[in-house]
Amino acid sequence: MAHRIIILGASGYTGAELVRLIALHPQMEIVALSADRKAGLEMRDVFPHLSHLSLPVLKKIDDIDLADADLVFCALPHATSQAVIHKLPDHVKVVDLSADFRINDPEVYSKWYGKPHDAPDLQKIAVYGLTEFYRAEISKARLVAGTGCNAATGQFALRPLISAGVIDLDQIIIDLKTGVSGAGRSAKENLLHAELSEGFHAYAVGGQHRHLAEFDQEFSALAGRPVTVQFTPHLMPANRGILATVYVQGAADAIYNALEAAYAGEPFVQLLPMGTHPSTRHIRGSNFCHIGVVEDRIPGRVIVLAALDNLTKGSSGQAVQNANLMLGCDETTALMMPPVFP
Amino acid sequence: MAHRIIILGASGYTGAELVRLIALHPQMEIVALSADRKAGLEMRDVFPHLSHLSLPVLKKIDDIDLADADLVFCALPHATSQAVIHKLPDHVKVVDLSADFRINDPEVYSKWYGKPHDAPDLQKIAVYGLTEFYRAEISKARLVAGTGCNAATGQFALRPLISAGVIDLDQIIIDLKTGVSGAGRSAKENLLHAELSEGFHAYAVGGQHRHLAEFDQEFSALAGRPVTVQFTPHLMPANRGILATVYVQGAADAIYNALEAAYAGEPFVQLLPMGTHPSTRHIRGSNFCHIGVVEDRIPGRVIVLAALDNLTKGSSGQAVQNANLMLGCDETTALMMPPVFP
Amino acid sequence: MAHRIIILGASGYTGAELVRLIALHPQMEIVALSADRKAGLEMRDVFPHLSHLSLPVLKKIDDIDLADADLVFCALPHATSQAVIHKLPDHVKVVDLSADFRINDPEVYSKWYGKPHDAPDLQKIAVYGLTEFYRAEISKARLVAGTGCNAATGQFALRPLISAGVIDLDQIIIDLKTGVSGAGRSAKENLLHAELSEGFHAYAVGGQHRHLAEFDQEFSALAGRPVTVQFTPHLMPANRGILATVYVQGAADAIYNALEAAYAGEPFVQLLPMGTHPSTRHIRGSNFCHIGVVEDRIPGRVIVLAALDNLTKGSSGQAVQNANLMLGCDETTALMMPPVFP
Amino acid sequence: MAHRIIILGASGYTGAELVRLIALHPQMEIVALSADRKAGLEMRDVFPHLSHLSLPVLKKIDDIDLADADLVFCALPHATSQAVIHKLPDHVKVVDLSADFRINDPEVYSKWYGKPHDAPDLQKIAVYGLTEFYRAEISKARLVAGTGCNAATGQFALRPLISAGVIDLDQIIIDLKTGVSGAGRSAKENLLHAELSEGFHAYAVGGQHRHLAEFDQEFSALAGRPVTVQFTPHLMPANRGILATVYVQGAADAIYNALEAAYAGEPFVQLLPMGTHPSTRHIRGSNFCHIGVVEDRIPGRVIVLAALDNLTKGSSGQAVQNANLMLGCDETTALMMPPVFP
Repeated sequence: MAHRIIILGASGYTGAELVRLIALHPQMEIVALSADRKAGLEMRDVFPHLSHLSLPVLKKIDDIDLADADLVFCALPHATSQAVIHKLPDHVKVVDLSADFRINDPEVYSKWYGKPHDAPDLQKIAVYGLTEFYRAEISKARLVAGTGCNAATGQFALRPLISAGVIDLDQIIIDLKTGVSGAGRSAKENLLHAELSEGFHAYAVGGQHRHLAEFDQEFSALAGRPVTVQFTPHLMPANRGILATVYVQGAADAIYNALEAAYAGEPFVQLLPMGTHPSTRHIRGSNFCHIGVVEDRIPGRVIVLAALDNLTKGSSGQAVQNANLMLGCDETTALMMPPVFP
Repeated sequence: MAHRIIILGASGYTGAELVRLIALHPQMEIVALSADRKAGLEMRDVFPHLSHLSLPVLKKIDDIDLADADLVFCALPHATSQAVIHKLPDHVKVVDLSADFRINDPEVYSKWYGKPHDAPDLQKIAVYGLTEFYRAEISKARLVAGTGCNAATGQFALRPLISAGVIDLDQIIIDLKTGVSGAGRSAKENLLHAELSEGFHAYAVGGQHRHLAEFDQEFSALAGRPVTVQFTPHLMPANRGILATVYVQGAADAIYNALEAAYAGEPFVQLLPMGTHPSTRHIRGSNFCHIGVVEDRIPGRVIVLAALDNLTKGSSGQAVQNANLMLGCDETTALMMPPVFP
Repeated sequence: MAHRIIILGASGYTGAELVRLIALHPQMEIVALSADRKAGLEMRDVFPHLSHLSLPVLKKIDDIDLADADLVFCALPHATSQAVIHKLPDHVKVVDLSADFRINDPEVYSKWYGKPHDAPDLQKIAVYGLTEFYRAEISKARLVAGTGCNAATGQFALRPLISAGVIDLDQIIIDLKTGVSGAGRSAKENLLHAELSEGFHAYAVGGQHRHLAEFDQEFSALAGRPVTVQFTPHLMPANRGILATVYVQGAADAIYNALEAAYAGEPFVQLLPMGTHPSTRHIRGSNFCHIGVVEDRIPGRVIVLAALDNLTKGSSGQAVQNANLMLGCDETTALMMPPVFP
Repeated sequence: MAHRIIILGASGYTGAELVRLIALHPQMEIVALSADRKAGLEMRDVFPHLSHLSLPVLKKIDDIDLADADLVFCALPHATSQAVIHKLPDHVKVVDLSADFRINDPEVYSKWYGKPHDAPDLQKIAVYGLTEFYRAEISKARLVAGTGCNAATGQFALRPLISAGVIDLDQIIIDLKTGVSGAGRSAKENLLHAELSEGFHAYAVGGQHRHLAEFDQEFSALAGRPVTVQFTPHLMPANRGILATVYVQGAADAIYNALEAAYAGEPFVQLLPMGTHPSTRHIRGSNFCHIGVVEDRIPGRVIVLAALDNLTKGSSGQAVQNANLMLGCDETTALMMPPVFP
């Protein structure tokens, strides 16, 4: 019998991506969808690309019986998940796609997100959702916190290097380029087609982006000492995809070997041959992450490049991967579709 | 046991799309891939988005044992399929994605394609591959001719109307917009990114496009009299998708009803509610075709809009759908993935 | 001495385009800029591409002395120009870029725009701003009504044909494709980059688009009898440009000759050789309009294609061209910049 | 009387951009255009966006009287300029847009460009064409070597910092994103629209890009010691524009002050207020370069961002700026057009 699934926040891009993936999942059944401002509409009115599917009508959260689910995907805006998840009965598992439970230190959370956490008890039990590195904990978790999409990309490039001790921890720069769907579906002037297409710019430069909280937390924990990276995100005129160009200092062979060892058996993370590099177009619409390593002409300098789809491996695909583990399904179920190119 | 599949012409976009679809097909196994100019390479060298798959190395056609297959997908350039298919043993079924077997009259073929047909005997037995309208013949066919992607789009909008006799056969205009992947992967100046992005133009205006041969053949056969349409294709700055804006004269209700009756049970063709219209972005990467009908302010004038993905429903998805029928698989196998949006 | 210019509504795309053009106009000086919601900001805060220019700070309309101008460009939202222009002193000339004064019949205006006109007296004296066809009236006008950008494109293709009596007036179809900047700079979900890029759709299908009011008014006046056209606009994933594909019935030579005669001495309208067709990318950023004529394979059917930049020749360039005439400047001043390609 | 201008290599993008700019130059007249493979064609056949201009027919170089010119713009492919320029009479000034004369050391040239230089005598007298830093030499030069477009962008960000001694010379990283027109108009599979749009990738990673030769030469000369930078170019899905994200170590104030002092009186280089950053869309189609400075959260780390249009300020605009100096025209003539946005 299929697991009963509820998606909260179904009218955003990550909500729609969850539906896209679960549509082909043989062991999951969507029993309710919430979208407060679009309650009463059919999903096909909000996302016509899903119009061939039979889906529950959109409801307000308060009109949904959240107890009648095995697992809830919570794709609500940041800072709104906390109250909702707090009210869920204990038997309901949760994968939260917001930033609410990524940071386990309440003070760090309030520093980066500008408000105290509403559910510090849940914050303690939430497992960080980077599947490849928290697989055991996720399998047993009740609440998994989906990672930031940029944070995931940078970590795929860097975690094995920090764990293996093969790079200088004080000389890490993540120059990252992300597609516009990562900014969500809200109607903002700076996200209009006429504002973004045919152009390119950096944003949140100089250490302001909230995903830095994840880098700091995770890298420092791995290293056993504070690690502070430089991180410059850019918005690229493409809908999907993230490319992280990561500058590190260390020996290229040791770096390559550390990545190879870390991802040897991984179904979704692919290390390309030494010297080749990934493109966002080659992982579009898929749950794969491609990683490349190139040695610089300056001895001891290495560039590591990582590419993934922000809506799939960076959020909703990761969420389904985690839910698979939590529900006892095969981890790759409904996630093996190849990228869509061109 | 899986059906043994060979793909000829695997280094083009329709070849790659076939691999993408078959990758998740539980009853098909790719046993050989050809690409004459790229023989010796791995598919991942030519299409890095497929690098997670275990695939046969690319070979020259002459180095492949074509007899060792249940079905061959022939994704070769126009006019080159004929000789290859002619040499195949009788037990091997063929889905040809080129234009070689779409036109059953040798004289019409040579008029539009500028050369006599090399395999007129095969031309006679080839079945036109518009699945929804030739299902029975395709199920029993040895050789199926994939349709033109533009030709498919226009026919989804018009065939039921011609069959039902609800439109004026002398006043049909198909104004069509197609994505650039339809032009293939050949290195041509006029297909460069810098030439095409941020712009829009018509081409083959005035009745020159070869897909008119298909419209003429099919519509005339349906009507039992010659039908000649106007057809203006345009190139849009998007990689995938075709939108046909079809101008007809008739009663809107009768037109809508004819489409509704024709597509009632169809898994892939979706008629939208009266007055709504489709978008190419809502079928991207999928095998679905969306159709809309709008009544004009001028009495007796109606606009029918049809959208599909040229690489999927317009060619490789259609090809797999036909192969499913030919091999006795469920027709929708490996084709139910939702569109990728955004 | 330079003419003193005020631009009302400077924070929208047509306002910015006016500034771009006037920046190089030797006989115009911008003395005030309005933008009610962004009052107090510098233009460079709102449009960083203009940051090299010394421009007046943005003000609320009520804080500007409108009498201190020779000419006001009014780039306000539809239905808001009427009240503003009504209050201007008589010596101030006005080019209105909104739809407020395009329609000279108050009843027709209220039918299409859903409200009675607030300044019917001004409506009577406003001159329709399609320069090439109202040059004499514009030169003497106090108030010129800029045309709709789609309406301009369709008229460049059709007016000479209607005047010359060379086409069937009851069989005119305008299938038009427009860039997204035509929808303005307002923050709407359906104008987001992620919603529009890599896709294509029709809108206002079936005779609902307001620019039809202009087609009806102008074509009927030219023909001396009611002319009702079909008009289907589409949104293309490009920022600038309009392509109108116009289907007419008549003799190709007569049609070509009528266009040639009409545009022989025109500096901005270029008739391409018979059988060639224009592209929006080849007029981008310029005040040029390219027109092509192609004979269809069906005798008596002809396709006329017209391309222009919606923000330049379709609105702000047209507005400057009209202002040049009204102020006694050479008509082409500040408008001869070549298109920007690629 | 206008200066007589010849453009060699007029069928490429930089050639067309030269024509676009010179079209409005009151003191330059184009007397000949070469395009060997397209000789005999009109410029409007090769670049329809220039069809309103009266231009000489395209000829083979050998059919042009190169002596009959005051100045030749040489927009030929790399390594082909040398022989042509060598044959020019002494009275003809030359602006070469290729890489042939950028590197003044013959050994360095042959290392990066894979062949010995054919005109080492000219190599000695060629002046490096970064106008803002070689103004005096350019004014007196007979032969000016246009810079690489990426090399120009990086130098605008870094030269004042190196000259002022305010950054660590051993910790410079240039992460650069460039539009596809920089790759030229040659028909290559990897430059097709379907290959590039909606994606992003790095290329020439690790110190392989030829513009490094310019960085090495110029930065080392400025510093009076060898300076070796890291440089990673990326291809972005946009036609025009370069953004350089430059990571340096030093004090933010000193860095900002050095840039402010360097560019105080410059007409084309604009330093944005501290903490703001440029976008390629805000310099598109113009000769402006926008520069921003942001302090990182890590003390002593600073990000400098520079944006320009590769075809204008990065090549053809720079070339006209240099030609203005060489011919005694005002340096800004024909170059003050504002950027085209959106």
